[in-house]
Amino acid sequence: MIKTVDFAKTRITGGFWKKKQDMVRKTTVKAVYDRFCDTGRFDAFKFEWKEGMPNKPHIFWDSDVAKWIEGAAYLTELKREPWLERIVDETVALIEKNQDENGYFNIYFTVVEPERRFRTRNDHELYCAGHLMEAAVAYYKATGKKKFLDCMCRYADYIEKRFMIDRDTGFTTPGHEEIELALVRLYEATGEERYFRLAEFFVDKRGANDEPFTNWAASSYCQAHLPVREQNTAEGHAVRAVYLYCAMADLALRNGDAELKKACETIFEDIITKKMYITGGIGSSSCGEAFTVAYDLSNLLAYTESCAALGLALFANRMLCFEADSKYSDVVERVIYNGFMSSVSLDGKSFFYENPLEIIPYLHTRDKSANNRSIHWPQMTRSEVFGCSCCPPNIVRFIPSIANMLYSDDGETLYVHQFMQSCTELRRGEGVLRVEQRTAYPENGKVRITVSGGDTRVAVRIPGWYDGYKGETVKGYAYFDVKDGQTLEFDFKMSVRLMEARAEAVFDCGKYAVMRGPVVYCMESHDNGELLRDIRLDGRARFVPGKHAELGVPMLTVRAYRRRRDESAPLYSPRHDSLEQISAKLIPYYAFANRGVCEMQVWHLVK
Amino acid sequence: MIKTVDFAKTRITGGFWKKKQDMVRKTTVKAVYDRFCDTGRFDAFKFEWKEGMPNKPHIFWDSDVAKWIEGAAYLTELKREPWLERIVDETVALIEKNQDENGYFNIYFTVVEPERRFRTRNDHELYCAGHLMEAAVAYYKATGKKKFLDCMCRYADYIEKRFMIDRDTGFTTPGHEEIELALVRLYEATGEERYFRLAEFFVDKRGANDEPFTNWAASSYCQAHLPVREQNTAEGHAVRAVYLYCAMADLALRNGDAELKKACETIFEDIITKKMYITGGIGSSSCGEAFTVAYDLSNLLAYTESCAALGLALFANRMLCFEADSKYSDVVERVIYNGFMSSVSLDGKSFFYENPLEIIPYLHTRDKSANNRSIHWPQMTRSEVFGCSCCPPNIVRFIPSIANMLYSDDGETLYVHQFMQSCTELRRGEGVLRVEQRTAYPENGKVRITVSGGDTRVAVRIPGWYDGYKGETVKGYAYFDVKDGQTLEFDFKMSVRLMEARAEAVFDCGKYAVMRGPVVYCMESHDNGELLRDIRLDGRARFVPGKHAELGVPMLTVRAYRRRRDESAPLYSPRHDSLEQISAKLIPYYAFANRGVCEMQVWHLVK
Repeated sequence: MIKTVDFAKTRITGGFWKKKQDMVRKTTVKAVYDRFCDTGRFDAFKFEWKEGMPNKPHIFWDSDVAKWIEGAAYLTELKREPWLERIVDETVALIEKNQDENGYFNIYFTVVEPERRFRTRNDHELYCAGHLMEAAVAYYKATGKKKFLDCMCRYADYIEKRFMIDRDTGFTTPGHEEIELALVRLYEATGEERYFRLAEFFVDKRGANDEPFTNWAASSYCQAHLPVREQNTAEGHAVRAVYLYCAMADLALRNGDAELKKACETIFEDIITKKMYITGGIGSSSCGEAFTVAYDLSNLLAYTESCAALGLALFANRMLCFEADSKYSDVVERVIYNGFMSSVSLDGKSFFYENPLEIIPYLHTRDKSANNRSIHWPQMTRSEVFGCSCCPPNIVRFIPSIANMLYSDDGETLYVHQFMQSCTELRRGEGVLRVEQRTAYPENGKVRITVSGGDTRVAVRIPGWYDGYKGETVKGYAYFDVKDGQTLEFDFKMSVRLMEARAEAVFDCGKYAVMRGPVVYCMESHDNGELLRDIRLDGRARFVPGKHAELGVPMLTVRAYRRRRDESAPLYSPRHDSLEQISAKLIPYYAFANRGVCEMQVWHLVK
Repeated sequence: MIKTVDFAKTRITGGFWKKKQDMVRKTTVKAVYDRFCDTGRFDAFKFEWKEGMPNKPHIFWDSDVAKWIEGAAYLTELKREPWLERIVDETVALIEKNQDENGYFNIYFTVVEPERRFRTRNDHELYCAGHLMEAAVAYYKATGKKKFLDCMCRYADYIEKRFMIDRDTGFTTPGHEEIELALVRLYEATGEERYFRLAEFFVDKRGANDEPFTNWAASSYCQAHLPVREQNTAEGHAVRAVYLYCAMADLALRNGDAELKKACETIFEDIITKKMYITGGIGSSSCGEAFTVAYDLSNLLAYTESCAALGLALFANRMLCFEADSKYSDVVERVIYNGFMSSVSLDGKSFFYENPLEIIPYLHTRDKSANNRSIHWPQMTRSEVFGCSCCPPNIVRFIPSIANMLYSDDGETLYVHQFMQSCTELRRGEGVLRVEQRTAYPENGKVRITVSGGDTRVAVRIPGWYDGYKGETVKGYAYFDVKDGQTLEFDFKMSVRLMEARAEAVFDCGKYAVMRGPVVYCMESHDNGELLRDIRLDGRARFVPGKHAELGVPMLTVRAYRRRRDESAPLYSPRHDSLEQISAKLIPYYAFANRGVCEMQVWHLVK
């Protein structure tokens, strides 16, 4: 059985991800904590809120803080930080103190509406429970402190009693999935099979009963349109969807459930062939924050929530435990360098909830004379905190644990999925295998992998974007028998590619995206002047790599053209295409929106 | 002073507009009447509706029927139709019978909510009054029957008393303009100056006071953001806007009000340089059915209400009374052959409320899992009647009176604005000038204009789309001293043009529209297969004119290319642009959506 190599076995030692991890440790974790304090999220754990007081707890506040604790635990696992541990310990003490005698714990449904406990399907109650469980497992693993884990076991026991045994709750499966995958983690941490059975219960019952939802959403909004094994398309709220698919993969893997595995595979295929942006963003509609129909991938209206992108990476990474197939690890790569990475500013302090692929600021002011039926436009700048602030703490937990994406292992073959400058030590039978990656990826594609501590078979993903590999591959992986101390060397040359989308993706027709290695590039009007849509890149010119002086990120420069502007021209006139040559500058998509509001685009005209 | 030559002086004797007028007489006027009967609109004039009965009258039903009567009057003016007169006479009898002793007449505010008379600004009360007045004037002119006109004079007297003298109403200016221009017509028909003063009152007070509106609309929604003389941009609900601008032009012209004229000119310029589709459609947003910001001209989301298009033609035609400038008459032409003409099906039975410039059916199903914040997509097929059915009767009144757009005259110069096969007789001092146009316009650009009955100066618009005219022009008009019986001949050769939009109109960047003469062409997937967005017209190939066998309308065929489809291709892949040659077929935009739902587009890629 292939298992993900836990991130805790790896130290990221340099390069792209070291910088991002340092940023989270030095800046992001504190920035999110501060904003959560400002907004009363941490104080809410005191259970002292009363009607009339400010900062009324929201139904999903438990989860916001839980995800932050999980992130703090991962940082702690890599290197202990007393100030983080103190905050977590204080919060856990409050959780223990305020946990109900039955084991129930939820801020909103204790201090605001206790009478509605377990009554309303769409109120994030079990979603909060799930994130608390994930946080408890992470904190236990990082510190050995068991109090939080014990609290959450009591809570899981109570949920089992009410939902599975007594069945006296107002709903059977939660409106927002999360607890399912969390229960699998709780089972793995404790060995308590009942938690695994409860996860199965929630997954198996979904779509298999007639549960009420809301008056504005269909059952597909929460993936309850069909029993999960009969689902073959990605539907509804994208974050809920991918969290469910993660749990489905977890269960299918552990149970050898072929039917469930098949559903995971089919849904994954539906996503990557019809419903994913080139950045790895998913969930194109703001209406329900949801997947829509196939190929509906508007760049201007792209909702593409940060949480959905990272959830897709979590789902794809789980699929790698069935088999090493680069269609999964290529998607992980696409997400982590693009649609996920865009979600946090370069300084680590502010966040995108939505990650659009095009910004034209003037359109955002269109419906100024009325607000009925107005269009929801994605954010143009990142914010430090949101009313619904799920994304920032998700970023805090994802980046420290990014090495979860690096390797998997089945005891005979070590699978290398991603490329990061790093050292890993993993248990192999009685011994320890030491794996070292030396690489500046994604700055360039040179990778050296040295394995010591024993002989082993090594499978290395040949990136899907690289077409120069001459050796044999199986499902995108090259296999090697490696001797103790041997080094494998690769050079995935990063030429710049113009990418096209299938014709069904109508918003991209006639346009091309620029990629270098795994990184999608974009244009901003800060660098290119306004009206980016009128710029035509020269399809035969060379992209010159460089560094963006102000942003400190890579930059590509290329010959391009734009129509000469004639201020007196009428709105419509016969084609004249009087072009002037310009030099277009592109920056990585992940670095956009770090200089205030401006135009941005990923898909360009090419002449 | 330049005056529009009343349509009643003209007989359309053949060609495009004869067919359309015959269609309205034979089909449309009856089709709209039948649907209005089905829905209870005519019965409502009996004032017998009680709570619990079906077909509860709506606040704008008076106006729906009034516009139908106005259309019936125009048809009657051209040729009497007993069945139409009988219906009008019966309805007028009901109006007389049910008119309040004070002169008040409104169905809704008598049988449903009498206590709210003249209390609520946005409830179309004075809008209905205005349309009734226009209908009364039209019917009086067509038949000499005065009963309806007398009723409406009594109503106008009462409105004057309440709004201008007693000032005891719940608002000062109506939320939906219309009565202003109607009062000017009532004044012209009766010679009663008080009606002109009342029109001035409503126009002058607009935006000059703090009137309540609704919680979802800004004051600009009903053009009340500024006093009218200070307005310099087109704002808010597009139909309300153009009806107001018509009244402003009427007053400015009759009063020699330079300030008000300047506002009309500036607003007109704002529309045609920044807020008008190539079809002449205006009001791009469904949110408030409104103008939005400059250059926000999404083709997919184009709201472009039929009423707004014809209202723009009415406004532009009025501006021609200040001076003959082809910027006005070119807009009239753009509207009547495109954005207005699309509003009725080729069989004359069904109607567009919205007139989109692009249809991609699959996008309309996008928000299937939730309906909160869902996007309003324009109609894909025409309907026979709408809940808010303002457009169909507007079409019924516009086409029979289309010759209002043909000529204006100042006693010395006859201005020829449009080209239609027709005979006109107009009073000139003591004599009568007879003007005959022989033309198949817009099938071709050959026009012969014969003037008899005296010598006269004639000014002929040289169409803005025609660049081959060699003579001298002043503001787009060529001037001739014509002898009695002389014929002017023109041949505005109709080559096919690829049109581009200014770069600020971002939705059109990189795309081109096809026009032949004044007619905008489009592609439908019925003729070209699906995924029109991926078709590239050959920019150097010749457009071959022909006739569409099924639709019986002109057709253009041109060499084009589309990407070869590879069903196994991933969603994103390196540019390959393997093109196959096809033959693209285009039909006039006015003829789209006559064969069921399919893709349609006006702006095309060109290779």
